[in-house]
Parts: sequence; structure tokens; C-alpha cells
Amino acid sequence: MRTIDINCDLGESYGRSMAMAETGIYPWISSCNIACGFHSGDPLSIEDAFLRTQAHHVAAGAHPSFPDLMGFGRTMMTMSVRELGACLRYQIAAAAGIAASLGTALTHVKPHGALYHLLWTDDDSARLFVDVVGQFDGHLRIYGPPDSAVFEACRAAGLPYRAEAFADRQYEDDLTLRPRSHPNAVLDTEAAVAQALELACRGRVKTASGTWVPLQADTLCIHGDQPGAEQLVKRMQSPPAITRHDH
Amino acid sequence: MRTIDINCDLGESYGRSMAMAETGIYPWISSCNIACGFHSGDPLSIEDAFLRTQAHHVAAGAHPSFPDLMGFGRTMMTMSVRELGACLRYQIAAAAGIAASLGTALTHVKPHGALYHLLWTDDDSARLFVDVVGQFDGHLRIYGPPDSAVFEACRAAGLPYRAEAFADRQYEDDLTLRPRSHPNAVLDTEAAVAQALELACRGRVKTASGTWVPLQADTLCIHGDQPGAEQLVKRMQSPPAITRHDH
Amino acid sequence: MRTIDINCDLGESYGRSMAMAETGIYPWISSCNIACGFHSGDPLSIEDAFLRTQAHHVAAGAHPSFPDLMGFGRTMMTMSVRELGACLRYQIAAAAGIAASLGTALTHVKPHGALYHLLWTDDDSARLFVDVVGQFDGHLRIYGPPDSAVFEACRAAGLPYRAEAFADRQYEDDLTLRPRSHPNAVLDTEAAVAQALELACRGRVKTASGTWVPLQADTLCIHGDQPGAEQLVKRMQSPPAITRHDH
Amino acid sequence: MRTIDINCDLGESYGRSMAMAETGIYPWISSCNIACGFHSGDPLSIEDAFLRTQAHHVAAGAHPSFPDLMGFGRTMMTMSVRELGACLRYQIAAAAGIAASLGTALTHVKPHGALYHLLWTDDDSARLFVDVVGQFDGHLRIYGPPDSAVFEACRAAGLPYRAEAFADRQYEDDLTLRPRSHPNAVLDTEAAVAQALELACRGRVKTASGTWVPLQADTLCIHGDQPGAEQLVKRMQSPPAITRHDH
Repeated sequence: MRTIDINCDLGESYGRSMAMAETGIYPWISSCNIACGFHSGDPLSIEDAFLRTQAHHVAAGAHPSFPDLMGFGRTMMTMSVRELGACLRYQIAAAAGIAASLGTALTHVKPHGALYHLLWTDDDSARLFVDVVGQFDGHLRIYGPPDSAVFEACRAAGLPYRAEAFADRQYEDDLTLRPRSHPNAVLDTEAAVAQALELACRGRVKTASGTWVPLQADTLCIHGDQPGAEQLVKRMQSPPAITRHDH
Repeated sequence: MRTIDINCDLGESYGRSMAMAETGIYPWISSCNIACGFHSGDPLSIEDAFLRTQAHHVAAGAHPSFPDLMGFGRTMMTMSVRELGACLRYQIAAAAGIAASLGTALTHVKPHGALYHLLWTDDDSARLFVDVVGQFDGHLRIYGPPDSAVFEACRAAGLPYRAEAFADRQYEDDLTLRPRSHPNAVLDTEAAVAQALELACRGRVKTASGTWVPLQADTLCIHGDQPGAEQLVKRMQSPPAITRHDH
Repeated sequence: MRTIDINCDLGESYGRSMAMAETGIYPWISSCNIACGFHSGDPLSIEDAFLRTQAHHVAAGAHPSFPDLMGFGRTMMTMSVRELGACLRYQIAAAAGIAASLGTALTHVKPHGALYHLLWTDDDSARLFVDVVGQFDGHLRIYGPPDSAVFEACRAAGLPYRAEAFADRQYEDDLTLRPRSHPNAVLDTEAAVAQALELACRGRVKTASGTWVPLQADTLCIHGDQPGAEQLVKRMQSPPAITRHDH
Repeated sequence: MRTIDINCDLGESYGRSMAMAETGIYPWISSCNIACGFHSGDPLSIEDAFLRTQAHHVAAGAHPSFPDLMGFGRTMMTMSVRELGACLRYQIAAAAGIAASLGTALTHVKPHGALYHLLWTDDDSARLFVDVVGQFDGHLRIYGPPDSAVFEACRAAGLPYRAEAFADRQYEDDLTLRPRSHPNAVLDTEAAVAQALELACRGRVKTASGTWVPLQADTLCIHGDQPGAEQLVKRMQSPPAITRHDH
């Protein structure tokens, strides 16, 4: 049996409790990325998410994004370096401080949505992101795509990195994600379970064209806001071909 | 000559740079209270404010408020204990973390607007506020009214307190502030300079009814968003009957 | 068989599509109250909600609230008359204009959350609300509690009123709603179906104390954001003791 | 003496009254563009702006933008057609409905900030913008750059257009605006007055390279949020070589 880190984007509620929907996911994951208030995450949802990571021994990460509550952080925004840097600093500070004041600690940072895609390819933004994270704590791990601008920036800065693959998203041959605007961009539960097993056990993925492409990942992402997220994360580990990593 | 702490609410910009208007105030004050994004304070304005406190050796405080960008934090809001606690934790965390990652440190916390008024009299909210501040750092000073619920809560918890008086606000006989809805609630520059001198040198204030009432303050507040704030803070110290406290 | 208007709060999504969850409710209701962006309702969710009211011949109302995205409009806010008036005007204008530009029309306005509760008892706010609605269109119906400040203000102004009762909320003996902070404030599906039938067919409700109290309602409200809302609204009409009103 | 429309972006306050700063401008302009709440403009500021247009016989336009309160609408955002369309519809609806309910009427629509720049060159977005405006009222004028995608879309749709030039912005040889990130992007009062006179009386502008380039404008824009805006707009009309157009 293999173990692998299984991470999930959580705390993604704004203005009304989705805690119930998310609660069932915590026992099945080993790390999670908590919204910081810019694409979602009102303060109470964030606090609840950190408290649940403590209860379930889940590694707690910050999940900063562009300031885009209306578009759930999925809108690409052309910010100046100083504006983007200040937005990142604000969100990571909020998450780290909430964690510390509740008696726990931030373990990692993962960019969200359009910011994730920007850091995949844009060297300047990737360096900025790594710089800001490093100014907080040199032990914070950065989660991102395996072969990417943010990976290179992280390596250059000597910060720890976790290469991430997605259980529930369709890959293209070049290992980019099929855009959400396409049909079949998001896999159904069966297909996501199968993809998770291949990623975890064989380090490969079947792309949209039907080709098997190698993809070595340190962590598997599932999306907490999908209907069936709890289903997916349970099914991935039963029968127990893989299991969540024990931090 | 007496010295006294002179504090100012700053970083109060959202979406467009008011940095210019505020810049001139820093050399004349000894501490400031930086908006945390809930009544004002976009991330870049906050970052700029912290950088200026470093340059001018001004003590940097967090200035949390109700989540009320539209009403500048001046609307009283009836939040649950958990909601209010989470809002305070989020804002103080953001401010403290930004300061630390920029190589400086938070020295104090001062409630803003309607929250300030709530903590003046409401024991439960005052205890909650002091609890949350204390969970960050037992050395953080709390700024608030001299004789108030938050002062009592602070004393009970053993946290340091700074009793605050307002240079530019008209007082009632019971040492509450004349509400902003009244004419003459905010003093003009001449009257504010005079009130500052009396507060700093004689520990007293002339109320709306014309009565002299004793008021012992550790810190004097001036409002950075008033036209003429820079004027006021210069005039207060010239002729130098009082001067800003050297931290 | 009786017919009665069945209304539902919809369009209550911000930043991510909950359209799916809400879609199933439209065929079963006769009017709905669409969030205007202040407690929820991003522009696309609002537009989608109006398009669905057209497709399903559902009367479309505006559902204005306090400016409280973080608290889903459930936080009581003490705004000045001018501030509250401007917030109401803005929201009703947005909803009415979106409807008109899509080729449909607004039929009614219903206050949301804490604003609903304020208008239940506060005469000044109730008059302000009725005044602002009347400045748009004298034919707009106002939905609110049967015996309330807003009902009186509406009658005095000569605007049409629809007295509302809640299928899924527990009533107190004085016909106020049990606060959401209490357990059992929200009824389960079975209890809500039973309450709906009693309200529609016999004009009475069994309160928290177990007493039957008369309650004559023109419209029954169910909450679209409850899990099981679709269940509830179907069950209410099957067996067909009541059916949705045909506008 | 020539007359020309002089327009100004106003209502650009969020959370605190800048009414004072803006008030002095109304007597000197003939049309204004009122923020709709997405880059600035809280409801009370918007209402106050419309009331002042009535008092000063100034044509009142809507000034929609990307949903970017934090960046004052100056951040380019890559929204889907449906998202952008819904954002425009919401803002124009709010502005038009507020105007109507106050007994006045919207006369025009002008895109703000990054949206203005997008519509300068992007045909699809320009057509979308013109479509949404046209669905409100075929008499609404659209303000935009003289030779632009939005001008072409407007002509194709048969909607009235007003070509705009900027008194206080430095032009490049191709009649684009020097980006705000450059020094000298914004002219000082003297240079802006001179540029306004050349634009109004001779239909030409001196670009950054020192070349005179023809530029025929129907309306001159000055920016209400610049310090000295009131100065500028007065100076432009004294000595009275030009005067504001009488609607």
C-alpha cells in the first residue's frame, strides 16, 4: 500500500455556513488549504476550518487568491507587483495569525484559482509569491504544479515544495488542466477515483487525448466545493490501495 | 514641557491612494492605529502605513472594526460572540503578520468606530476583545476610553492599557463623546489645539456644557481623515508646551 | 383544494454557482424573492434567477437587506435614515432594472433577514421602506409579517401588501419567529409540510408552546438555502391539498 | 467663444463622505459620470451625486466598472461574457433606477478605468457593452474614445456616441493615454488648462513626443479625484475661451 498526501480546498464559505457540507471531508484528508477571505472564507468559516484541522490532525495551509469574492478567485487580474505582494502578505498573515492564536500552526501555502494558473507560467509573479511566503517562515511548504514557474522560483529560493496533481480534473497532454469552461473539465467520482489511484500508485495520468503521461506528485488535490467531494475522498481510500499520508 | 503619546488613525484608504494626505502626519505623532481592511485599509495602504511607522519611529497598532466598509465602521452591528471574535482575530492576525513580515512589530490594538463605542459600555464584548488580543501577545497594549468596560476587562486580564482622550472631539459632562450627528461634535483646529493642551498639561477638558471635568489620559487621539489633521498635529506641538512621546 | 402563493428566497449565491441546488425549486413556487447583492446575489446569480422566473412563470420580487455579505444580512445594523434609504433605493433599482432589461418586471419587494425583523416593529424604518418602494412603482406589492409596523405603514401609504407566514420556522405564541440561535428554530421537512397545510387551509399555526394560534397569510415562505428545500416544496403540494397560486 | 461638454467622474466615495471635496465641481461641468458601487460609490454617495446633478443642471451618467473596489477599477480582469454582461446590467440598472426614483433620468453611460481601456480595443467586449446599454434605453449616449472598438460597436448598433478627450492626461502619438504608471501621465493644472483649450478650440493635442495630433472630441473629461480638480475646471473656463455646454 502507498501513502500520499491528500489535500482539499476548505473553509470556502462566505456569509452562510457550509460547514456541514465540508465537515465530513476532514477525516479523509491529510492536508487542507483554507480560504483567506479574498475568494471566499469569512472569518468564522476560517476559524472553524482551523479548529477542524486540529481535531482531525490535518495539516493546515493558507489558500490566498486574487481579491475576487464575486468571481470566487477564478478571474485573472492584472495587478501591479506591489498590489499583488500586499494582497498575498495580508492573506498569509491573517491565516498564520489565526492559526497561531488558536494554538496551531500554518504548514503550507497554496495559491488559488486564477493565481494558481498565473504562477504556473509567470516567472515574476512566481518569484514575488515565493519571496512573500519566505518572509513569513522559511519552513512553509509551497504547493503547486510539478513543472512550473513557482516550482523553479521555490527551488531557487531554497523553500520546500510539494508538487500537486488533481484527482478530479481532466489533464491535457502538456499536463495543463482542461479549462473549466470545457465540458468534462471536472471528472465524475468514478473517473476521479481511477485517476487518483494511477497518480498515487503509478505516477501517471490519462490525458484528454487518451494518452498516458508520467506525472510524479507529492500531493493529490480534491475540491471540497464539488458535490460528491466526500464520496470521492472516501472511495479513493477504499479498497485501501492508497491511504492519506500521516503527518 | 510635558511629553504625551499622540496617536492617529491611519492607513484609512480603500481603493485609491490617500497616502499623500496622510504622509505629512507621521513625523508629528508617536503612535498610530492602522486600519485592518474591515472599515478601510486595502492591503497596499496597510503595508504603506507600516513602512512609514518604521521610517518615522512611530508605534504601530492594529485598528480593528466591525465588517462595515460601506459605513466606515461607524454602524453598530449586533454580531454573535463567535462572529465578532472571529472578525477581531482575523484583523489582528493580518496586522500583526504584515508587521512581522516587514521586520517590525505590532505594539497595540485600538478598537474603531462603533466597536469602540460598544466596548466602552458592554462588558461581554469588552472581555471578548481583551481575550482575543491576549491570545496573540500578552504585551500588546489596548487603547480605549479611561473609564470603560474595556478598561475593566483589561485590568482583570492583566493586559497593559492606555487611557485615551480625543483632541478634536467635543465631550459631554459624563465624558462620553458628543455623537457625530450633532453639530460641533468635531472641534475646529483652534479648539482642538486648546483641548489637547489642557488634556496633556492639566488633565482636564471643557465639556459641551462649559464645565471643566478631570480626564487623565495616557494618549491623545487626533483623526487622520479630518481635513486639517496635519495642521492640528503640528500646532499642538508649537509652541512646544507638549511634544510627542519618544517610544 | 385551496391555492395560496408560495414564495422562496432565491438567487442567494455569491461567487460560485448554486444554481443547480436552486433550479429544482422554481416549478413548485409561485413567487420568489431575489437577493440584490447586499446579503448575497452576485450579478450573474441575480440575472439567472430572473431568467428562471420567466421560464417558470414565477412572480419575481426584490429581496433587499442590510449591507452585510459576511453575515448573510442576519446582523442587525443601526444605520441612519439616509444611509438605509440609499441602500434600499440602490438594491431595488438594481433588481427592477435588471428585470426590465431582460424583458420581465418586478412584482414585489420583501425585506431580508435582520431588516425584515427591524420592519416588523420599527415604525420609522417601516415608513422609510414603504416610501422608497412607493417611489419606484405604486403597484409593487410589499411582503411582510401579518401584524407589523411595515403592514401599518403600507396600509397608510395605500400600497398593496401580502401578509406572509413561514412554513419552516417555529412560531412563538405572539407570532414572532423563534430566533435562529435556538434549537428547533427551523422545522424539519415533515413538520414544515404539516405547518404549511394548517396555514394554507385553516389559517392557524401550532406555536412552540403547543398552542394553536390564528394566522391569516396571503403567502407562504419556504427557504431556498435549506438542505431539503426542494423536498419540502414538493411535499407541500402532494397530496394536492394546496397548490401554488397561479399569477 | 466655443461651448463643449465638460464631464467629470464623480460620486467616487466609499465609506466616507468626500462630498465636500466634490461639491465645488458641479457648477463648472455640464455632465458627470457617477460611480455605481463596483470601483467606488457607496449608495449614499451615489444618491448625493444624483441630487447634485439635479441642483446644478448637470447631465447624469452611469460609470460602470469591473468589480474591483480594492483596485478602484483600474485592474484588468478577464471575465466571461456572461459575467461581464451581468456586472454591467447590474450597475446600469442601479444607476438608472436611483435616478428615476429621485425624479431625474440617466443621460449617458461611460465605462470606467480598466474597462474603458478594454472597450477601446476589444471588439467582443465593446459589442457586449453596447448591447447591454441598448437593452435599457436606446437614447442613452455612450461616452468613449474617438476611434475605438466601442465607437464602432455603437455606430453599428445605431446608439448615440460622444467622443471623449482628456484634459488632464498625457497622450501618446497614437492617441492612446500614457499609462498611469509613467511619470507625467497626469498633467498639472497649467498643462491641463492649455490642453483643454487646444482640444476645445482647435481639435488637436500635443503628445508626449511634442507632436501636434488632430483629436476631435465631443466632450472633455477632467478627473474629480485629483487634488486641484476644482481649480482645473474653473481655470479652463476663465478667461472664457470655452464654457461648459448647456444641455
